[in-house]
Amino acid sequence: MKIAVFGTGMVGTTIGTKLVELGHEVMLGAREASNEKAAAWAKTTRAAHGTFADAASSAELVFNCTSGAGSMAALMAAGTASLRGKIVVDVANPLDFSKGMPPSLLTSSTESLGEQLQLAFPDAKIVKTLNTVNASVMVDPSRVPGDHDMFVCGNDAGAKAEVTALLRSFGWTSILDLGPISAARGTEMYLILWLRLWGALGTGDFNVKVVRAPNA
Amino acid sequence: MKIAVFGTGMVGTTIGTKLVELGHEVMLGAREASNEKAAAWAKTTRAAHGTFADAASSAELVFNCTSGAGSMAALMAAGTASLRGKIVVDVANPLDFSKGMPPSLLTSSTESLGEQLQLAFPDAKIVKTLNTVNASVMVDPSRVPGDHDMFVCGNDAGAKAEVTALLRSFGWTSILDLGPISAARGTEMYLILWLRLWGALGTGDFNVKVVRAPNA
Repeated sequence: MKIAVFGTGMVGTTIGTKLVELGHEVMLGAREASNEKAAAWAKTTRAAHGTFADAASSAELVFNCTSGAGSMAALMAAGTASLRGKIVVDVANPLDFSKGMPPSLLTSSTESLGEQLQLAFPDAKIVKTLNTVNASVMVDPSRVPGDHDMFVCGNDAGAKAEVTALLRSFGWTSILDLGPISAARGTEMYLILWLRLWGALGTGDFNVKVVRAPNA
Repeated sequence: MKIAVFGTGMVGTTIGTKLVELGHEVMLGAREASNEKAAAWAKTTRAAHGTFADAASSAELVFNCTSGAGSMAALMAAGTASLRGKIVVDVANPLDFSKGMPPSLLTSSTESLGEQLQLAFPDAKIVKTLNTVNASVMVDPSRVPGDHDMFVCGNDAGAKAEVTALLRSFGWTSILDLGPISAARGTEMYLILWLRLWGALGTGDFNVKVVRAPNA
């Protein structure tokens, strides 16, 4: 599949590399076509890089791996036309580092980045997922032993099914559909707990398993 | 132990009954001494009931099982003097039902109810726990099979150790210390994810297990 990956940080390059390994045709998108990190990544992986608009316009599916604070601007730069009808896998978290560590959220509990992006791009199909684990675990869930869960949410059932298939190709076996994109409030706010767990455990290589009663 | 339980709803009566069963001397606290739910509960369990101040003043330890929106008022009614030096186990979640369902939070991501109570009652030892599961699971973790985690946080290590011992007497075996009371931001915001999981699973009898890498 032709896939655009927005963001040249740890998450974008890790997802991009995994997608290349899986045989997809990947273009890493950045604000500037001359982005040096994107160019270095593209050289190593023999993939492509360009602006957000370059990447999105030729892609069938887009991964948003930008920082949460920059996500809206990245999608705006890509443009409504190049996102129309496409699945946008939103991996970003709206973390606010401006008030010091640990970060807080840029959103209130009646909103989420996933919903904001869906509202701003009604013709795109936003699917929120992967934002509840670190980049290494995103593309290699076996780093965390045994059974543990990945959450997906979004308004389009077909888009969630396609993203679920992609997640399975990453190695995810337990994928829990939380419903419409408004469930992104839950998975984004979980990051505040994730950050405390990270501190308590001393590693980011963890995830949660939802354990339920046998009659459930 | 002499224990005050604030709140006459499902959480307060469930915790109160469990404490009575474990042999503790329990007084259920309410706004009014004449609270009918408290009186009925006390009759059934052969325990006591009274005002928040009645309950707190004679207790060695206090469980705050009021609704999050009413917690500050309940502790204020109990009074600074009757809470001084005491452990207050804060089970409440600052849920805001005024904007419709599902509820949002009364707090922003740079605060939490646990911290607000600790700030308002600096001489009490607030320990946040149990707020991440429903009332039935709080007092009977075996309703959810296998291994799953309960979180505690608070500023006083001795208070957390005492509360951990109480949790073990409830049946909890895996108790994760997330650090100071500011970690309550994480466990309270998790409720927004909990509500979505509840919807997706169709049962409130669930919990999460934090799964970590073997080298962690």
